[in-house]
Amino acid sequence: MTSLDFSTVGKKQKREDFKYNWKDAALYAVGIGASAKELPFVYEGISGGMKVFPSFATIAAGSALVYPGNIDFSRFLHGEMSIKVYQPFPNGATIRRETEISNIYDKGKGALIVTTSSGYLENGNKLYDAIYGFFYLGEGGFGGEPGPKSIIVAPPEGTAPDFSVTYQTTENQAVLYRLNGDTNPLHIDPEFARKGGQAKPILHGLCTYGFATRAVVYEACNGDVSLFKEFTARFTNVVYPGENLTIDGWKTGDRYIVQVRTDRVVMLGSALVNIA
Amino acid sequence: MTSLDFSTVGKKQKREDFKYNWKDAALYAVGIGASAKELPFVYEGISGGMKVFPSFATIAAGSALVYPGNIDFSRFLHGEMSIKVYQPFPNGATIRRETEISNIYDKGKGALIVTTSSGYLENGNKLYDAIYGFFYLGEGGFGGEPGPKSIIVAPPEGTAPDFSVTYQTTENQAVLYRLNGDTNPLHIDPEFARKGGQAKPILHGLCTYGFATRAVVYEACNGDVSLFKEFTARFTNVVYPGENLTIDGWKTGDRYIVQVRTDRVVMLGSALVNIA
Repeated sequence: MTSLDFSTVGKKQKREDFKYNWKDAALYAVGIGASAKELPFVYEGISGGMKVFPSFATIAAGSALVYPGNIDFSRFLHGEMSIKVYQPFPNGATIRRETEISNIYDKGKGALIVTTSSGYLENGNKLYDAIYGFFYLGEGGFGGEPGPKSIIVAPPEGTAPDFSVTYQTTENQAVLYRLNGDTNPLHIDPEFARKGGQAKPILHGLCTYGFATRAVVYEACNGDVSLFKEFTARFTNVVYPGENLTIDGWKTGDRYIVQVRTDRVVMLGSALVNIA
Repeated sequence: MTSLDFSTVGKKQKREDFKYNWKDAALYAVGIGASAKELPFVYEGISGGMKVFPSFATIAAGSALVYPGNIDFSRFLHGEMSIKVYQPFPNGATIRRETEISNIYDKGKGALIVTTSSGYLENGNKLYDAIYGFFYLGEGGFGGEPGPKSIIVAPPEGTAPDFSVTYQTTENQAVLYRLNGDTNPLHIDPEFARKGGQAKPILHGLCTYGFATRAVVYEACNGDVSLFKEFTARFTNVVYPGENLTIDGWKTGDRYIVQVRTDRVVMLGSALVNIA
């Protein structure tokens, strides 16, 4: 007996506006590890204007999600995250938002719920699509389509990456990151984390995603956020605050295969950047 | 020819309300070095209720300051900071604020301007006094009173402190701290800092003051903010983000002499706590 409401699929729902200013963008940048040496992303007075990491889309979209019926969140996993950015984020704006359940796929052991949350500037220009892949355990087997093949592929074996950078997360990374909006106690409360089956609080998957985006911006776009187009990633393992994240990128055609690892692979993704 | 307006002295001025929530208090806590291990100050869901460091008074008061006339801020130094806390800060409130220039003293080489900004809860209960000592270079010699002797005294020579704790500031400390409201470029912009005569951006004096307050809360109040009453401190040298702060306290009567040092003494203060 599934609790999924398939009638929600394809229906765009307007959500409340998301207003932010440069402090929100700077707090996000610090939350994904930006340092005092990355002034364009943390200093509103920087010559040329402050920039915003494209993965800020996940913050703008995070409070605009909708679900296909009443969800048992203990079986509802955020498996994939994808963003498409149509123009760089200004360092402050009011974003009009709408969200839809784009598809519900049947993966056998579970349902894959694809939710798309889009943001528009007040002049109507599209800013981003944030596409969430939620895996709902135990809700498959309803006779639906399995959905398209993922664009995410494993890195080429035995080939050195075209870029490799290691970022240190701090013991406080999740404490800081959650001030951006995702205040799930799993990321700060040791007791809550234990009850959830974790040895200790874990880093937000979207924080790791932000670190990876930051790496793509610097290593594949030379710091120019206007060259950043898309980034799709799958979460494969947990990260604990304080662990180092090594982010490797392999250029394959117009995309980068992006892998994030601690002492294990924690994320695998595919980034599209606008470089000839 | 002084630009000081002595007629401002003693006139209470109502200032706009200061609204804050637990995220503001947590951001402040992280800004003064609180870690994921200090859950009562960073986690809104903590059993017993979230606490707020008493030096949050400097954030609440910081946007409520008034000045005695048009000030040349290049000669206007924040020399001393004092807070009196009448009850612990809730983890969210709307604070009614009023500020006055309490006194203008004649210190010869400059004027000492004492400004008192007070905060009240909506039920009328007083929350704090934040008392600023500004030294206005070149504005002394007007025939005024020199003012009372400071309660700040040097630590006893050759006597081990009753407590000593070392906190590490991070390279990002000022980048983070400024998100609480004091966005002076001196604390983030290398070029601006150089023009201001500093080798590089310096940490906010009130950030150091916050670290010292945090030390007093843990070391002299056993983490119980309700025992914290007053803290008066004088800034004696600059701190750079990333430096370690060693905070020593000597109990003398009902007060602690509090000294903060890097490889030099950067702050000297006197704290009153409610311990028998």
